[in-house]
This record gives sequence, C-alpha cells and structure tokens, in this order.
Amino acid sequence: MKQLQQLIIEFRDVRNWKQFHNPKDLAISLSIEAGELLENFQWKSSEEAIESRLENIKDELADVVIYAFLLSDALGVDLERIIFDKIKKNEKRYPIEKSFGSKKKYNELG
Amino acid sequence: MKQLQQLIIEFRDVRNWKQFHNPKDLAISLSIEAGELLENFQWKSSEEAIESRLENIKDELADVVIYAFLLSDALGVDLERIIFDKIKKNEKRYPIEKSFGSKKKYNELG
Amino acid sequence: MKQLQQLIIEFRDVRNWKQFHNPKDLAISLSIEAGELLENFQWKSSEEAIESRLENIKDELADVVIYAFLLSDALGVDLERIIFDKIKKNEKRYPIEKSFGSKKKYNELG
Amino acid sequence: MKQLQQLIIEFRDVRNWKQFHNPKDLAISLSIEAGELLENFQWKSSEEAIESRLENIKDELADVVIYAFLLSDALGVDLERIIFDKIKKNEKRYPIEKSFGSKKKYNELG
Repeated sequence: MKQLQQLIIEFRDVRNWKQFHNPKDLAISLSIEAGELLENFQWKSSEEAIESRLENIKDELADVVIYAFLLSDALGVDLERIIFDKIKKNEKRYPIEKSFGSKKKYNELG
Repeated sequence: MKQLQQLIIEFRDVRNWKQFHNPKDLAISLSIEAGELLENFQWKSSEEAIESRLENIKDELADVVIYAFLLSDALGVDLERIIFDKIKKNEKRYPIEKSFGSKKKYNELG
Repeated sequence: MKQLQQLIIEFRDVRNWKQFHNPKDLAISLSIEAGELLENFQWKSSEEAIESRLENIKDELADVVIYAFLLSDALGVDLERIIFDKIKKNEKRYPIEKSFGSKKKYNELG
Repeated sequence: MKQLQQLIIEFRDVRNWKQFHNPKDLAISLSIEAGELLENFQWKSSEEAIESRLENIKDELADVVIYAFLLSDALGVDLERIIFDKIKKNEKRYPIEKSFGSKKKYNELG
C-alpha cells in the first residue's frame, strides 16, 4: 500500500498538481468517480454489467481509490491506519451475534 | 494491503454478509459513502471542514475504501493490480509535458 | 409543472422505456446525473464554472429534474405535492429565529 | 412551478441563507441529497424500498428538486425553460425509431 501511495504521489508531483489538490475538491472528485463507477450498473443487473463493462468498472474503481490516496495525503492522514481504525469501530457497531445475516444499519439493530 | 483486505473479508464473512454483496449494491454503497464524505465539506472551505469534521472525514474516507475492497473481491479482481494498471493508463493519458501544472482533462489536452 | 411532466412521460412512452424505469434504477440515474452536474465545478470556483461550463450545467441540472419527474411517476406520487409537503416540514425543522443566517443542520440547532 | 419556486426562494430569504448559496455548494448539496435518496434503495429491491421507506424517498426526492430550484435561481436561469430545452435536445439524441425499446446511450445508438 505504501508503494502504491508513493507511485500516486509521484504521479501528482511530477505534473505539479498538488496546487489544485485541496481536500474539498478531492472529495468532490472522489464522489464524481463513484458516480462514474455506478454508471456501469445503470439499467443493468450485476451480471450484465460485469459481462459488458468489466474493464471500465475496474478503471473507475481504481480511480476512486487513487482519489482516496490523494485525499488522505492532502489531509496528512495514513490511509491504512484510518481503514484499520474504522474496521475496529465497525466491529463494535456490528456485534456478530446481532448483525449475523442481517442487512440492518447499526442504529437499527435491536 | 493484502492484510487489510483479509481483515475486511473476515469482517464480512463472520457476519454472513456475502449473500448481500452483489457488485451493483456495492457500487451503490460506495457512491452513498462518497456522498457522506462530501457532506463534511458542504457550505465549508477545506480548512473549516478539517477543523470541525476531521474525525468524520477519516471515517467516511475509510468506508469508501472498505467498499472498494469489498467490490474488488465480489468482482474477483485484485485491487492493488487494477490501481497499478490505472496509474499506467493515466501516465499515457497525461503526458508530463502536456499536463504539467494544468487542470485540463486528458481529452482537452492539445 | 403538469405540462412538463406530461412532455417527459410522453417522451418516455413513445420510446417504450417505461419497462426499464424501476424506481431503484431511476434513483441510480438521478444520482449519476447529479455527479455529472457536479463535475462542471471540479477544480473550479463557481465563477470559473459558470464562465466556462454554463451550457453543460444547465443540461445536467435539467437531466436531474427530468429523472425526478420520472421517479415520481414510477412511485405514483405527485412531485409538486411532495415538494410542497417537504417545504412545510423544513419550516418546522428550521424555525426562522433559530436558523436565521446560520449554516447549521436542524439537528445541530440549539 | 413558479409558485413552488417562489415558496422556496421565500423560505431561503427569510432565513438569510442566500449568502451561503453559491452554485458550487448548491451542486454539492444536490449531489449529497441524491445520495441520501439512493440510500433508501441500498441492499433492497425497488419493491422492498417502497414498502419500507416510501416516506423518506418522497422527502429526499423533494430535497433534490428544492436544490435544483435554488441552483437555477443562483445561476439566474429559468428551471422550466432549461428542462424544456433539454427535452428538445434529448428528442434529437434519441430518435424514436432508433431508441424504441432500447437502453442504449445516444452515443451507442447505431
């Protein structure tokens, strides 16, 4: 993960793009890419989307995570660390016995 | 990255959630989380958002990447691999000499 | 508004598209269009976006509302009515004296 | 539609909110609301969503269109007009004979 992060930062820096990368515009960009990812599934079942659009799905999914790396860098936070911390939080929110096989949100769990 | 992936898959599997995780609903979920991330910047400058909402920004950013891991797993693709491939593609789309210090999209580069 | 609604429904029906227009895919479509609208503001101030992208902003904004009409039709609800009802709800959530000149969400108002 | 527009503008103005309503933040807000609308369909079929979440779907759909009105006002454009113009554009993009019963995008139509 560190290696990918480094590649992405280098890609940005040799193009002198850091000047544009304020957190707000990066969050906007990530949201736009998430919409482009979703567009592959518009009017389609998962199976139809995968059959006809897998290459684009992979590209857009990658773009989302690339923006996640860029945003974490702009915020000065470690992406691996915050994911690890969030998993810990989710483990408390979703105790196995209550959430097993359930689609409920944590605030709807009895 | 493999270790995080494993933690996330395990989190899913001990809760028996794989049954819900079709790619279309995962792409929807990722897009929803991207919106929740963006909500932290609504009516705010980057600085104001970071000052008042950094903890939530970190949580939502982590959620986005957690869904990216889950979607890559549901698709049977390697997340590191597709990011690496996309960086290579972006390097061709954005040659350094043409894109240096420029905000233009690749299809607008002269 | 009824006249626009009628035009949109007619546009859909002469193309035999109602068969695709389940509420879930319409909500997905509306969200995708909202992302395309937002893309016009990526890396730009409001002023820069308006100067260089106003035509596209108008098109994408229209697409969002067209999908809102289509979704309301698929749900069997009256779009004017639900907007009117929501304004009434918002008036209660945001009493003038508490929300005057404030960016706070209703659940943050003291 | 003019009457709704007026109600929404009045709601904004008696709260002195126009100062916050720059087009970029309004486009962000519209996109966030579109995500909240979509959240009602997460992990659900259209039927399940309607059965359990119709009230919230109506509220979020209304919020999307309220932001569309606010954005059109901030841009100084007439919402009815741009929708009408877009329908005309769509009629050219999607000729009936080519698009009848087809899910294809206009740029994929033969």
